[in-house]
Amino acid sequence: MLTELLRATRAHSLALAAPLSDEDAQLQSMADASPTKWHLAHTTWFFETLVLLPHLPDYCVFDERWPRLFNSYYESLGPRHARPQRGLLSRPSLDEVKAYRRHVDAALADLLPHAGDDARRLIELGCHHEQQHQELLLTDILHAFSCNPLLPAYDVSTPLKAVAPDQAWLKHAGGIVDIGHGGSGFAFDNEGPRHQALLAPFEISNRLVTCGEYEDFIDAGGYREPLLWLSDGWAAVQAQGWQRPAYWLEDGSVFGLHGVQPLDADAPVMQLSFYEACAFAEWAGARLPTEFEWEAACGLPGFALAADQAWQWTRSSYAPYPGFKPAAGAVGEYNGKFMVGQQVLRGGSLATPLGHARPSYRNFFPPAARWQFSGVRLAR
Amino acid sequence: MLTELLRATRAHSLALAAPLSDEDAQLQSMADASPTKWHLAHTTWFFETLVLLPHLPDYCVFDERWPRLFNSYYESLGPRHARPQRGLLSRPSLDEVKAYRRHVDAALADLLPHAGDDARRLIELGCHHEQQHQELLLTDILHAFSCNPLLPAYDVSTPLKAVAPDQAWLKHAGGIVDIGHGGSGFAFDNEGPRHQALLAPFEISNRLVTCGEYEDFIDAGGYREPLLWLSDGWAAVQAQGWQRPAYWLEDGSVFGLHGVQPLDADAPVMQLSFYEACAFAEWAGARLPTEFEWEAACGLPGFALAADQAWQWTRSSYAPYPGFKPAAGAVGEYNGKFMVGQQVLRGGSLATPLGHARPSYRNFFPPAARWQFSGVRLAR
Amino acid sequence: MLTELLRATRAHSLALAAPLSDEDAQLQSMADASPTKWHLAHTTWFFETLVLLPHLPDYCVFDERWPRLFNSYYESLGPRHARPQRGLLSRPSLDEVKAYRRHVDAALADLLPHAGDDARRLIELGCHHEQQHQELLLTDILHAFSCNPLLPAYDVSTPLKAVAPDQAWLKHAGGIVDIGHGGSGFAFDNEGPRHQALLAPFEISNRLVTCGEYEDFIDAGGYREPLLWLSDGWAAVQAQGWQRPAYWLEDGSVFGLHGVQPLDADAPVMQLSFYEACAFAEWAGARLPTEFEWEAACGLPGFALAADQAWQWTRSSYAPYPGFKPAAGAVGEYNGKFMVGQQVLRGGSLATPLGHARPSYRNFFPPAARWQFSGVRLAR
Amino acid sequence: MLTELLRATRAHSLALAAPLSDEDAQLQSMADASPTKWHLAHTTWFFETLVLLPHLPDYCVFDERWPRLFNSYYESLGPRHARPQRGLLSRPSLDEVKAYRRHVDAALADLLPHAGDDARRLIELGCHHEQQHQELLLTDILHAFSCNPLLPAYDVSTPLKAVAPDQAWLKHAGGIVDIGHGGSGFAFDNEGPRHQALLAPFEISNRLVTCGEYEDFIDAGGYREPLLWLSDGWAAVQAQGWQRPAYWLEDGSVFGLHGVQPLDADAPVMQLSFYEACAFAEWAGARLPTEFEWEAACGLPGFALAADQAWQWTRSSYAPYPGFKPAAGAVGEYNGKFMVGQQVLRGGSLATPLGHARPSYRNFFPPAARWQFSGVRLAR
Repeated sequence: MLTELLRATRAHSLALAAPLSDEDAQLQSMADASPTKWHLAHTTWFFETLVLLPHLPDYCVFDERWPRLFNSYYESLGPRHARPQRGLLSRPSLDEVKAYRRHVDAALADLLPHAGDDARRLIELGCHHEQQHQELLLTDILHAFSCNPLLPAYDVSTPLKAVAPDQAWLKHAGGIVDIGHGGSGFAFDNEGPRHQALLAPFEISNRLVTCGEYEDFIDAGGYREPLLWLSDGWAAVQAQGWQRPAYWLEDGSVFGLHGVQPLDADAPVMQLSFYEACAFAEWAGARLPTEFEWEAACGLPGFALAADQAWQWTRSSYAPYPGFKPAAGAVGEYNGKFMVGQQVLRGGSLATPLGHARPSYRNFFPPAARWQFSGVRLAR
Repeated sequence: MLTELLRATRAHSLALAAPLSDEDAQLQSMADASPTKWHLAHTTWFFETLVLLPHLPDYCVFDERWPRLFNSYYESLGPRHARPQRGLLSRPSLDEVKAYRRHVDAALADLLPHAGDDARRLIELGCHHEQQHQELLLTDILHAFSCNPLLPAYDVSTPLKAVAPDQAWLKHAGGIVDIGHGGSGFAFDNEGPRHQALLAPFEISNRLVTCGEYEDFIDAGGYREPLLWLSDGWAAVQAQGWQRPAYWLEDGSVFGLHGVQPLDADAPVMQLSFYEACAFAEWAGARLPTEFEWEAACGLPGFALAADQAWQWTRSSYAPYPGFKPAAGAVGEYNGKFMVGQQVLRGGSLATPLGHARPSYRNFFPPAARWQFSGVRLAR
Repeated sequence: MLTELLRATRAHSLALAAPLSDEDAQLQSMADASPTKWHLAHTTWFFETLVLLPHLPDYCVFDERWPRLFNSYYESLGPRHARPQRGLLSRPSLDEVKAYRRHVDAALADLLPHAGDDARRLIELGCHHEQQHQELLLTDILHAFSCNPLLPAYDVSTPLKAVAPDQAWLKHAGGIVDIGHGGSGFAFDNEGPRHQALLAPFEISNRLVTCGEYEDFIDAGGYREPLLWLSDGWAAVQAQGWQRPAYWLEDGSVFGLHGVQPLDADAPVMQLSFYEACAFAEWAGARLPTEFEWEAACGLPGFALAADQAWQWTRSSYAPYPGFKPAAGAVGEYNGKFMVGQQVLRGGSLATPLGHARPSYRNFFPPAARWQFSGVRLAR
Repeated sequence: MLTELLRATRAHSLALAAPLSDEDAQLQSMADASPTKWHLAHTTWFFETLVLLPHLPDYCVFDERWPRLFNSYYESLGPRHARPQRGLLSRPSLDEVKAYRRHVDAALADLLPHAGDDARRLIELGCHHEQQHQELLLTDILHAFSCNPLLPAYDVSTPLKAVAPDQAWLKHAGGIVDIGHGGSGFAFDNEGPRHQALLAPFEISNRLVTCGEYEDFIDAGGYREPLLWLSDGWAAVQAQGWQRPAYWLEDGSVFGLHGVQPLDADAPVMQLSFYEACAFAEWAGARLPTEFEWEAACGLPGFALAADQAWQWTRSSYAPYPGFKPAAGAVGEYNGKFMVGQQVLRGGSLATPLGHARPSYRNFFPPAARWQFSGVRLAR
């Protein structure tokens, strides 16, 4: 089971990189995004550093100079190459990084039959960690391609036309609900401890806001009316000149993984910041759900998770659950230290690997972030 | 009653400005702070624009050119002088601003006997608004003085030595609690609607962290250990070179309203960012309370509000309460539009006017802010 | 003679400050400009530090804490208050700075009868230094006032209408000419050594470009045609959104020391950057003169110096003359260390004190500077 | 002759790129530098746009979308991809750019036999233009490699040990000298018109300053003594933390095209800014030569041009020669528009293609530039 998860996860990363040239795989278009090659190497470094070195006797580090290149943000694991300069690493080459992956995969295969519980837990964590980077790999290469005037397509196939169900308000009676991961499967530390919360009655939409609905907001002057916006949001609109979602082009078409395509009015709107999500909700006479409302409602009949469409901004900032304690050591530098200045998103997206997300899953990004597959579900 | 509140409030602003020269009153040391003169004028503009113009027939605006100078951030009330340039308004002079105050005060006196409920509610709001600016007037002039190598004292009297009670953990049993403003007195819109929340059992400190305790944190290397810090906090420590609270000097003394004074180990530590508050709590094996815990605990026997000492950072981001709706029109641009990117502080401070704060009062600042009288109360 | 120069110079600074309030005198609207109060204090510090301390036995420094506040850029004279924060010095007050001036003036009066040649030379230098600051005092307060939406007038009198002579090209035959200060009177070190230079024949305009002529350039699309501009100039046009000279208002009027006035077509155009001066010249089928051409031509019959109108950008960068050596010690940190990245201006301006400029005088500013009284004389 | 120049030039660019991977060829480490792939494409675009389109009937543009990608700064030739984003062009691939080169080379071969004088002059210009980019290709890839902690070597061969001749001062008697390109061969427009200049007598060093001599300057505290520096230079030292030349490592070794090598005391010091060159000269009791002195002296017996070592900063800013007029049209946007804010360098460097430089050649860079092979020759 773990063997299969590991095999499939490692293979999927390579599959995602397959349509890309060596040059594509090196692109870093902003400090917040990383090159494909770096994602491939960093996820490998994670296994090497947190699994193999402590648990596989005689494991030999692939290259002593690389940990500094591929450590992301673990202060406890030594100095790191500056994040905004990841795109300057033409060496090691993509081929060398693939050799690194094979080296580490082979060592993991050696370890697996003898791995104790600790090691197995870390391998499982490494798989879920790599799945997170699989999503980022896609969002990051899409952002990089969006900076090339040729607007290349990551996937040259033709996308299917979306079908949006009729919008409906689902009622939740409120009361005391259970929040957080409960079952026995894997979850990240930030999904727990499971605890109770008290909700007032509320309604939530069965589906995401569509591109067609968002066009109405634009046509109604949504980007020109300050009273619809949070103060920071309006400042961003003016400073960045926002007039539409991040990858909507001036001519009415939309850029995405399939390249430039006609706007699909029934598809969920994506590439929205939290600010835009809030302004849209205000304009629509509604609001964003809290992350607890979202989690409590997601089992309601008719609720389309949309976990293969777009992450859904919530009105909740990313904060620790009552009793939350990060794990000791480097592994603890994973989720807890980012618990300020970010908003929680729930659901999943077309870029999320199958089986990665859960109803208790807490994704998080700063409120101005627009390069994710992030959309809106309304509540009231 | 309202008459007296208005009189006292308007008089207190002038009293706070009394120790300052015309030159002092014009200082703006950063975009986030405003000159004393501007505070005196802006609070007056608030009454002129939101009370007198709609409610006093034949009211004559003092100077047609000034509303644009003294509107703070009300998008619905027209264009504004750029915030970072408030310190460049040598004209109007402080004397002219005082004449503006007298003009508006006289008109308010004319209005009061005939004021209907709406007008009276707006006058009350104007008083509480002005009280908020009284606190900012002090924090802002203190920041400005801290930028002058002569480190002038706002108040030349000698401060009293602090006495800190022994630290004790107060127990709260958790359960469903009422949150938000309940009584009939004045409260800001963001303190409501009153609603219920569910709390897990917790303990909270009877008093604030002292300067002496914070010195221990510094001496133990708190500013050099990244694992104690939130990621954004550690980035701030490194980018800004933080090594101690904002107004602690290298020689061990502390700058404040009384000028440079010896560090008082029993006094509450202040001028901390949220990041520092969190890092201290982590180091101390504790955490910050949520704003709901704070509010639920503040009536516990032994709980020192410390509302005349320092605001207390909470672990809660500033967000709308369930069912919150800002008022319609310009008055609604008051609290709601800032509900992202900020942390809630509770309590009050030595700079808060008497009678201004309440247990349900929600102050808020960005997590990096250090120029307020902001301290730490621990929970666990 | 020196006594009279000193008296008149010191008195003139105060006269220039007379129309300003304490608040006006503290304004600093950008890092490149300084408050009036600072100019008054810095010129006094110059006498105190470079004249009185070395030459008047038992001279007592007015305030030990002030030299650090009022040293401008003399690395050899100790640490300095950061330049962009000069506007934050509400203390010392303007009154205290005036007392400082009286203290230093009295000491200079004590010294003068006994002053040796060295001291007398330094006093003379101090006077010319103060005259330079008199011009800056005016350009800086004008910039500060331009940032106030009320656009206050420094001088409330009505300006005279300009009369521009007919434009004529004056011919110079070229050949070997003498450049640099020659006579026995005072000159700055950068005006020497006097030396010879070889010029090709050229023509130069008898007068400065007028506002009317510059309007034609604007109307012809001068600010929209990149081929007229130096590369750095075009970048500035785009980044800063330049569409007209610095103090020309959108409604066709012009802001200046007399406040807002109608554009005077015959007046010389001013508040131009070097980039604008070059673009205008290119459009006019001409060029800017070199500083040597300017100096060689300024005695030609019909050449209007315009030294009471506007400084004239030259095509020469500010560089040392052959054999130039700055004086030893702090006084040497005066002109030489700025000899890169600046263009030379010649002539003088309406803000230049009478008797301050000379034909050999070399003013210098970075090419993007627009807040000086800087205009254009054409050559070809 | 022209055929051979074209063939050799085009082939040399490819030879310079040969040691680089596709990933290396895409690196852009700062806005001032460009990727190798971009240099290969831009030089090709230059021929396509300025030679083939106007002179080869029926020439078919290789790809209509590319001119916008590979136009550098020619405002008259349409909109351009933003310079700092050249490193984001993973498409077109290096292979596609090579195909572009073949397409254009073939067309140039078609044109050459029938090319008129105009076309031949433009082809010659295109070759010299491409040679300039060959030097930049090397300086830019070196800068990019310097940002990779692995510090890869462009050239894996071992460099020869340098031999520095004894330093000697060569005397020039001054007088009227001829400056600028005179002969019949190719020269850039900025090397003319040839004209006369008057020089005072001076002495100039026979050779460049060595690394050993520069070490003495460092050891003597040169980077800590503000009085040695121009004001802008000292500001750069402090803001950038300069302590040694750009590619000197803390451990005493030096990074270069051959990777990390021991410091060679006899080799000329390189990777200096103009500011450092001036500070060194000041410390050595000398100065930099003007560009006219350099040109007048370069024929003196014993004068080592060092045109295969390092460009030599001069004390001259980059300005037009008397009578200079750029060519009409796009070709004129070549040299003239950069004539402000830059210092002239003379000589040539180890990265300059053979036969490219001349004694009248004027290279130019901003005074803070350090990524070129730029060194110092002293004068006095």
